[in-house]
Formats: sequence, C-alpha cells, structure tokens
Amino acid sequence: MTPESLNATFAALADPTRRAILVRLASGEASVTELAEPFDISQPAISKHLKVLEKAGLVSRGQDAQRRPRRIEAKPLAEATAWLERYRKIWEGNFQRLDALLDELKSAQKKSPPTKR
Amino acid sequence: MTPESLNATFAALADPTRRAILVRLASGEASVTELAEPFDISQPAISKHLKVLEKAGLVSRGQDAQRRPRRIEAKPLAEATAWLERYRKIWEGNFQRLDALLDELKSAQKKSPPTKR
Repeated sequence: MTPESLNATFAALADPTRRAILVRLASGEASVTELAEPFDISQPAISKHLKVLEKAGLVSRGQDAQRRPRRIEAKPLAEATAWLERYRKIWEGNFQRLDALLDELKSAQKKSPPTKR
Repeated sequence: MTPESLNATFAALADPTRRAILVRLASGEASVTELAEPFDISQPAISKHLKVLEKAGLVSRGQDAQRRPRRIEAKPLAEATAWLERYRKIWEGNFQRLDALLDELKSAQKKSPPTKR
C-alpha cells in the first residue's frame, strides 16, 4: 500500500457519481451503456469517471471484447478501509483511556469525600 | 451522512500530509507549531492543509485561545469508514456466492464422472 495508491483511491471516492458507479459494480460487472443508464449524465461523462476509477485501480475491464464489461477491484478499496480502520482504533483507544480516567477520578472522589462543606 | 460531507472527507484524505496530520492528531491534540515540526514543509503550508481538514469537519480547534490546539473529529471519519464497509460487504458477498457456485460445480462433477475417456 503506497501513499500514491491511497491518494488515488481517496481522490476517486471523492465524487458521488464515481461512488454510485462502484455501488453498481459491487453487485456485478456492467458495460459502459449499462452503467450510464441510471444516471442523468452523458456516456462520455461516465467514461471520464470510469477512467479515473481505472487509473486508481478500483475498476478493471472484463474479457468480453464486444461488451467490455467493467468490474470492481476490491484490493485498493480494502486498503483504504484498512487505513481508516487502523486510525479509528487509535482514536477510539484514546476515548476509552479518557473514559477510564474519568471513572477513576469519580471513584476516587467517592472514596475520599471532602472533609469540609 | 450527506454526499457532500463524504466528498469533502474523501478529498481531504487524498493527500499524504493531511493523512499524516490526522495520524498525529489521533494520538492527542496538538498546536500548529507542534504539527509542523515533523514535516519538511512550512507552517503556512501546514495551516493550508489544516484549513482543508477543518472545512471537511475532520479537525476542530480546542478551547485554549493561546495555543489553539487542533483535535481530530471522529464522526466524518467513522462515516467514511462505514460507507466503505457497507460496500465491502456487498462485493465480498458476491465472491462468497461465486465460491459457493464453484464448490457446487466441483462436487457435481465428482458425482457424475465423464462416461467416456
């Protein structure tokens, strides 16, 4: 997992049409015509988005020379998820440590109540 | 989770310096000076990256008016992770269905071996 591949994956995901294309491809491969159908944008615009997805390695072309179906490539998406998961664990760990500290302070207060009122 | 907030989160993550800033902030809040230290880039450049992260809601400013420490905001990162996890489940489901189909075909072949050699 290089920084460049993470850059390209996150940049590719930063567009709603490209995310919608990935969602469609997650349920099975599709031709450019099939991919363009549900969208209110031209086929050349879809092709442009597909180029970004292909360059980032998120989408590849199937064997059929006529239909040239596109399919999703799980690896870079799994790497981006792994990156986010790793740092989520760090900051969630911090919150848990903070919670534990607060609990400790609370129980310490209970054990030694203030001597003056 | 709006499409716009996902766009902004993924775009903010598409840069190695911004990801490094988030990694640093994941272990605790830090001032701009402290954030700039490990990087070979100027403080104004760090401030520019921080602006992108703040606009995307990934980083906020602490109470201390003098130090103005930055801290990580977990929510948009959790939303981006959730988006990726959701579609990972779909495509992993597809691979499992494909695996099951291949197993079925293999066992069907074993049960009825070819009659001619």
